[in-house]
Amino acid sequence: MSQSTETNRRIVLASRPQGAPTQENFRQEQQSVPQPGKGEILLRTIWLSLDPYMRGRMSDAPSYVAPYEVGDVLGAGTVAVVEQSQHNDYAPGDWVVSQSGWQDYAISNGEGLYKLSGPVLKHPSWALGMLGMTGFTAYMGLLDIGKPQPGETVVVAAATGAVGSMVGQIAKIKGCRVIGIAGGEEKCRYATETLGFDACLDHRSDDLADALKQHCPQGIDVYFESVGGKVFDAVLPLMNTKGRIPVCGLIADYNSGADLPEGPNRLPLFQSAILRKRLHVQGFIINQDYPNDFDGFFKQMSQWIEEDRLVFREHTVEGLENAVPAFIGLLAGKNFGKVVVRIADDQPESK
Amino acid sequence: MSQSTETNRRIVLASRPQGAPTQENFRQEQQSVPQPGKGEILLRTIWLSLDPYMRGRMSDAPSYVAPYEVGDVLGAGTVAVVEQSQHNDYAPGDWVVSQSGWQDYAISNGEGLYKLSGPVLKHPSWALGMLGMTGFTAYMGLLDIGKPQPGETVVVAAATGAVGSMVGQIAKIKGCRVIGIAGGEEKCRYATETLGFDACLDHRSDDLADALKQHCPQGIDVYFESVGGKVFDAVLPLMNTKGRIPVCGLIADYNSGADLPEGPNRLPLFQSAILRKRLHVQGFIINQDYPNDFDGFFKQMSQWIEEDRLVFREHTVEGLENAVPAFIGLLAGKNFGKVVVRIADDQPESK
Repeated sequence: MSQSTETNRRIVLASRPQGAPTQENFRQEQQSVPQPGKGEILLRTIWLSLDPYMRGRMSDAPSYVAPYEVGDVLGAGTVAVVEQSQHNDYAPGDWVVSQSGWQDYAISNGEGLYKLSGPVLKHPSWALGMLGMTGFTAYMGLLDIGKPQPGETVVVAAATGAVGSMVGQIAKIKGCRVIGIAGGEEKCRYATETLGFDACLDHRSDDLADALKQHCPQGIDVYFESVGGKVFDAVLPLMNTKGRIPVCGLIADYNSGADLPEGPNRLPLFQSAILRKRLHVQGFIINQDYPNDFDGFFKQMSQWIEEDRLVFREHTVEGLENAVPAFIGLLAGKNFGKVVVRIADDQPESK
Repeated sequence: MSQSTETNRRIVLASRPQGAPTQENFRQEQQSVPQPGKGEILLRTIWLSLDPYMRGRMSDAPSYVAPYEVGDVLGAGTVAVVEQSQHNDYAPGDWVVSQSGWQDYAISNGEGLYKLSGPVLKHPSWALGMLGMTGFTAYMGLLDIGKPQPGETVVVAAATGAVGSMVGQIAKIKGCRVIGIAGGEEKCRYATETLGFDACLDHRSDDLADALKQHCPQGIDVYFESVGGKVFDAVLPLMNTKGRIPVCGLIADYNSGADLPEGPNRLPLFQSAILRKRLHVQGFIINQDYPNDFDGFFKQMSQWIEEDRLVFREHTVEGLENAVPAFIGLLAGKNFGKVVVRIADDQPESK
């Protein structure tokens, strides 16, 4: 079933997953399209963003964002069209970025919305990717925490993913040597041939630590962490003195249970490295840590896009009904590029 | 045997320790007093500083400072008097801070020396403590990395130690709530009654984690880490969002062997906290990270000292011959305050 004018399809959290989410943790419901009140607008979803952080929100452990509630529609960034408006700032036909979630329609009072403009009008889904939260995460984490200097070595986990591919390309623009880590030969080839990384290593290979050492003869100055697990174990011994580790995700750990993994205990090793190498390790959440930096990011990225210096690959999923399997696949690394779901076929009118 | 005018007693590294150092890892030697050449001065040691970081230098694992070489005199900060000078900037009788190590005499070309001045002339050993590397470590780590704000909760490990006692007192000056962690009832009483901490908990008690939680009802904003081990395990769950962890030492781990400790593996727990709570964790080495900040530190601390806002306790050891047992005791937490060894009885002339 595709989008209709009468029915709002919505996907809600049916139950909290233990470990990897399964289809049973989600449920599709239908309701009639809601009506906007005074000061409100009705949004119709065109593009839905799927991102690894959502796994965290499906659990009720204390986290940086409030967990989804069981029975509620899953939250997510979207590109949407204004269908009806009782709000002074928005008119029917406006294209906006919103947080309207996994559903066809939503009511908004305008809070947190912004209208599409500039190059993104040609590729509205980019507003969820390289010109949206994804690119913003890569840009601020790399530049503000990672502080890469020309000639330094930057290692990027999930190198062909939505964030990682941007991190590596920005690091190349900044004059760094960039080593990616990705899952499988095809992704690695893409990282070097298309994204322009200096090398890309397959994290599935047995000799990741050795290969990484060989490709980082000067050590690692910046490790952009979005993975955790054994990739981190391979990176840590190679970190240079005064190295920086921005942490934007830990996808390897998202699906693990509540129990601590078996030993040995690697915590003292990490602490010792932080001390001996004077590492700067910092977690960040883009929307909360950088509320005032979006415009600067958007302007710089738009310029790089116009100069053809950035490649952005999308993994497009067709239809809301395919969002759940796409999300499960994303957590298993089955996507290749930024996962966006096309909920409807609309294109902005050229202005 | 005490200091003489003919003989230079020196303590060298006899062998590298496995685990906790023992007397056999050290050896006292004697040589004749060396003679300064052109551009050099002869220093006679008055005070010798003993610090936990020296344990790291006794091993040959890669570290932030070069390891001691077997057979070489052990390096250390000292307060010394110029005995002979062929250097334009120094005259006999000058008091200086130097890195002349565990010995009675040393030759210097002036590099890295500075002359004692200000309040420290009344208490020359303070130049190794609250007005030297110790205080500088506390001051920069707390203020530059920890960035404590009025009303925030600061937790200080090794609370009555040389660095910890300064961290807590500076945090109080900055308007924070300060909770110390120390070994034993006497130290804890000293931290609250003399240093003015809001509370101090005994890390030897079984219920450290519970007690810490009870004393940090608003969570922990800054944890000044110099200990590691189970103190850190108790602190981590209480860290607040955007908390800061300056890491200046890990004394609990210094004497452990090369093998990783038994599981469970607590590393993912730490990584997850860094991400979810957006923690800023940063190791630092005072002399390498803050080469240009000493004067500002010295001026501010001197002012606080003149205003009677700081208490500094020294654990004074008499004679070079007692340096080794004092150092072994320091690593076991048997000191109470900054450990300094009085090598000779001289006092600066009042000027």
